[in-house]
Amino acid sequence: MTKKIAVLPGDGIGPDIIAEAVKVLKKVEQKFGTSYQFDEYPVGGCAIDQTGEPLPADTLNACLASDAVLLGAVGGFKWDNLPGNKRPEAALLGLRKELGLYANLRPAIVYPSLVGASTLKEEVVSGVDLLVVRELTGGIYFGEHKRTTTEDGTEKAIDVLEYTRPEIERIVRLAFELAMKRRKKVTSVDKANIIETSRLWREVVAEVRKDFPEVEVDQQYVDNCAMQLVRNPKQFDVIVTENMFGDILSDEAAMLTGSIGMLASASIGAGNNAMYEPIHGSAPDIAGMNIANPIATILSAAMMLRFSFNQVKEADAIETAVAAVLEKGLRTGDLAVKGQPTLSTTEMGAAIIEEL
Amino acid sequence: MTKKIAVLPGDGIGPDIIAEAVKVLKKVEQKFGTSYQFDEYPVGGCAIDQTGEPLPADTLNACLASDAVLLGAVGGFKWDNLPGNKRPEAALLGLRKELGLYANLRPAIVYPSLVGASTLKEEVVSGVDLLVVRELTGGIYFGEHKRTTTEDGTEKAIDVLEYTRPEIERIVRLAFELAMKRRKKVTSVDKANIIETSRLWREVVAEVRKDFPEVEVDQQYVDNCAMQLVRNPKQFDVIVTENMFGDILSDEAAMLTGSIGMLASASIGAGNNAMYEPIHGSAPDIAGMNIANPIATILSAAMMLRFSFNQVKEADAIETAVAAVLEKGLRTGDLAVKGQPTLSTTEMGAAIIEEL
Ligand SMILES: CC(C)[C@H](C(=O)O)[C@@H](O)C(=O)O
Ligand SMILES: CC(C)[C@H](C(=O)O)[C@@H](O)C(=O)O
Repeated sequence: MTKKIAVLPGDGIGPDIIAEAVKVLKKVEQKFGTSYQFDEYPVGGCAIDQTGEPLPADTLNACLASDAVLLGAVGGFKWDNLPGNKRPEAALLGLRKELGLYANLRPAIVYPSLVGASTLKEEVVSGVDLLVVRELTGGIYFGEHKRTTTEDGTEKAIDVLEYTRPEIERIVRLAFELAMKRRKKVTSVDKANIIETSRLWREVVAEVRKDFPEVEVDQQYVDNCAMQLVRNPKQFDVIVTENMFGDILSDEAAMLTGSIGMLASASIGAGNNAMYEPIHGSAPDIAGMNIANPIATILSAAMMLRFSFNQVKEADAIETAVAAVLEKGLRTGDLAVKGQPTLSTTEMGAAIIEEL
Repeated sequence: MTKKIAVLPGDGIGPDIIAEAVKVLKKVEQKFGTSYQFDEYPVGGCAIDQTGEPLPADTLNACLASDAVLLGAVGGFKWDNLPGNKRPEAALLGLRKELGLYANLRPAIVYPSLVGASTLKEEVVSGVDLLVVRELTGGIYFGEHKRTTTEDGTEKAIDVLEYTRPEIERIVRLAFELAMKRRKKVTSVDKANIIETSRLWREVVAEVRKDFPEVEVDQQYVDNCAMQLVRNPKQFDVIVTENMFGDILSDEAAMLTGSIGMLASASIGAGNNAMYEPIHGSAPDIAGMNIANPIATILSAAMMLRFSFNQVKEADAIETAVAAVLEKGLRTGDLAVKGQPTLSTTEMGAAIIEEL
């Protein structure tokens, strides 16, 4: 059955890297006899330019009707001074909310051939393979935000952080399920010594873990986890946490690898909805120059095959091809060490397709 | 004039390390003719054991009446299952609020002789000397925390993050003032693309910076800052941020140095109130064993002389003595590399006093 993919290249290097991911998927069709329909829609800054809205209704409807969304990146200098809800990033929040994408999965993997790219010592990061499971549709991101004036005329800003028990339970349960397919360890991160949402979070973890007796559970405060990621990242398998903590820790974890041009992500929701995107940004300074690294997007496409289409051997094939290309020493500019020859975006895409 | 110091050893290794800091201060009295009065009070777990309260009224009153508070550490396994407001850590929040300690200054310094202790590569961390200025009496720490049930019977937890303009202004201004005495760069960290308190924060920064035209200003989102600390920590001089972001980022920054047994902190308020403490915890597993590193506490005492008593040459003398001892290769167990001989807590204290 043909899978409908809503393709949202977005801004900056988005179109460059998405083009390579689509080519890789077309090669997968040929090789494995799968079938994909690619429907391209504007999102972010280019959508603002075309329609005035970062997330036009047509784009949203196509995403809702798709089997999965593949997104490049959004944002750029040009739109930096627009008000919050009119900025390119608002499209991400809109997609998360409207598609109910409550879980953001961000693997941070140190590839053996790229271990030198990390700012951390080789013995500290080699072998790191962790997964941050971030809650994505709740918490302070979607609570009330307001400005008021106190009785004595002082200006005041207020943000509300809220979580219900079911919101916490579904993400924590997912983290345990994912851990069962990995190294069976869950680190739950909160600030239960200070905030009530974290205390509810801990209660839920205490309940859910009963259903996964094989999984080892560690509970860390967010400040400690920020330390532990630097001190000893190998201690982690699955990290599960709320929206804002996940935003911070997943970026920290990604940077440990030293090669964020390699890191994919999946945002998944109830039902069929899911969105896949590289974790890096739109890098407007190198847009259209054919030098961006397409691997994170290609690996995001692999995650799409695995999680949304259950095309496991196809996903494996892409990941194996990427690893093989790296083993051969092929590098885009962001990964190359001084003096190493570098491939363009399209050359890297072609090398991976060749390997497939 | 005699300076009154409220000495709060606290729990775990607190008494071990505080004892050495007090000895160092007594040596300073001898050498420089300054005069300190040391009044010891219980706080944290030991205060719970003695009085039922983590912050007994006597302790608080003594702190309010003091010229400065010198604290060891609080907490331990024994008190881990008490309810939130009865736990040792509640004493810290109580002291911050009651003494109005709105600014927490946490330097993260990589000592040349300890650069190898970092998990980061030498070229990335050598020379790092940054100061995190964390807002300490506002934000989500002191907003409302509650549990409710929604109309359909769902359990829900809520935390409120609030900041007034004056609360932000005083901490941002302090950060700029501190930057003027350093390398004149301020990195303000927020999440202005999502939360309203951060948008107000940015507005205040835009105002305050006008009074400091010489200071270079960078504004980073908190997720990006968590990355940048790993990617290139040398870019930072002063980082200023709100309470929860500061909790996370200051711990991450501290761990970059690899030697948190070395790091001091100051919490300062309006008027005379100030509290000085090491950033590390109470390490109950090694309490009373005479192996804890007293240097962070001794350097906290030096910060006290510098900031609260304006005894600059005395503070310099302590810091110089610590650096000299390290240069000589003297190490407590936490700093020693395999095979290196280690000093006990009291031996390290004695070595620093000798150097003075
Ligand atoms: C762009 C921004 C709104 C977004 C977030 O904070 O969630 C980004 O940092 C991310 O992690 O996807
Ligand atoms: C113990 C805890 C309440 C405290 C905090 O979160 O402020 C600690 O992490 C700190 O940074 O001093």
